[in-house]
Amino acid sequence: MEEIQSAKNSRVKEWKKLLTKKGRDQTGKYMVEGVHLLEEAIKANEVVEIMVQSDFAAMDAEQLKQYPVTLISAEVSRAISATETPQGIFAVCKKRTVSVDLSVHRRLLLFDGVQDPGNIGTMIRTADAAGIDAVIFGEGTGDLYNPKVIRSAQGSHFHLHVETGDLSEWIGKLKAADIPVYGTAIENAQAFTNVPPTDAFALIVGNEGAGVDPAILDQTDNNLYIPLYGQSESLNVAIAAGILLYHLRKPI
Amino acid sequence: MEEIQSAKNSRVKEWKKLLTKKGRDQTGKYMVEGVHLLEEAIKANEVVEIMVQSDFAAMDAEQLKQYPVTLISAEVSRAISATETPQGIFAVCKKRTVSVDLSVHRRLLLFDGVQDPGNIGTMIRTADAAGIDAVIFGEGTGDLYNPKVIRSAQGSHFHLHVETGDLSEWIGKLKAADIPVYGTAIENAQAFTNVPPTDAFALIVGNEGAGVDPAILDQTDNNLYIPLYGQSESLNVAIAAGILLYHLRKPI
Repeated sequence: MEEIQSAKNSRVKEWKKLLTKKGRDQTGKYMVEGVHLLEEAIKANEVVEIMVQSDFAAMDAEQLKQYPVTLISAEVSRAISATETPQGIFAVCKKRTVSVDLSVHRRLLLFDGVQDPGNIGTMIRTADAAGIDAVIFGEGTGDLYNPKVIRSAQGSHFHLHVETGDLSEWIGKLKAADIPVYGTAIENAQAFTNVPPTDAFALIVGNEGAGVDPAILDQTDNNLYIPLYGQSESLNVAIAAGILLYHLRKPI
Repeated sequence: MEEIQSAKNSRVKEWKKLLTKKGRDQTGKYMVEGVHLLEEAIKANEVVEIMVQSDFAAMDAEQLKQYPVTLISAEVSRAISATETPQGIFAVCKKRTVSVDLSVHRRLLLFDGVQDPGNIGTMIRTADAAGIDAVIFGEGTGDLYNPKVIRSAQGSHFHLHVETGDLSEWIGKLKAADIPVYGTAIENAQAFTNVPPTDAFALIVGNEGAGVDPAILDQTDNNLYIPLYGQSESLNVAIAAGILLYHLRKPI
């Protein structure tokens, strides 16, 4: 098999476009890298093509054969990687189209303007761990397919139903489906430990600096805060989401 | 007041040494940057000197006057900053010497080989929020004074008693002080929800890849796991610490 040697090759330029939101939006595709994410992408049946360094031995060759595979040089690997030290194996995936059905997806996490890709990805990973069914990306929230989001999520985005949309509209739909909606706030809120675990809930977390939009907080059933017992002024949003999701989720 | 213009100035070279562990170990000093951390450092009475860009107006001048202040150029600011976009205000601080006293410090978080500075700093911030008294840095754990740790901790390292030491020795001391010691593990552990909140506890979290050393897990009173309800294979260590600390901590 021929190997693509130069980072200036036209196909390399196409792959690099997937590192930008514009490129992902135009093509409906995104890129994952590393063995773990590639295995998850194969399981999820979302792989379009695979690019691998010729000296890369960690993947079972049989598993790759069902996809178009292109050999690439270390130079190309560096050019298309979003990390400093690429593993040398990549896949182009098609973006997911999975609709949320509130009659069966009864545990949700909603993002209101969450910006940091590491926070977004970590919350998707945590939501998956906590058995959350769906995640809604509200306005002003980062892009699910940002390489840092995908890396931090460690494959969990393949396991969840994810939609983008207007949070006010979603709150209306959640209420119509009898799913209690909890905002997170520092003032005019109650301690999360006062709310018992439930079978169905929707939790809204907000922007790293500004929190959840007050106009959104006005529409929820209840707003929760996490008590700060020490001298810390706040919690990281992903830590807060972890504490709240594992509290609201009824143990089985 | 004279302004230091060039990043090649000998004082700039001294400041830059504080960005390395060797430099911090040799001098017993470290650097913080940004308004929030500087305010926290002043409150904690740990500031040695302040460096500020001459066009920086956000700090109350009166507050700075009690310390030696050096004006620096934007070039110097970039040279001594650990961030891409420095705020333009820095302080050299002396390293803290605060001993843990288990007769009064009864809630502890112990790190066994935690490596990622962002995780370490976020856990210090979370421990402060949860009202933890002390944090023990076991062997193989990153350096408290690493700029990324300090930045992620957002000033919480000033609020906690922090020591480094051998975790086996610490477990002995904790047991002698009647403080239950909980490890974290995936196998041979019990669901954290089975352990009730208590007034005194010590929680050990481990390395991002390997977890807590099995030899340490053998010495604990109990090892806890967080149930994974979805398809995620693990939780980020800082998320796990947040869930466990807020569970073990008795609400007041």
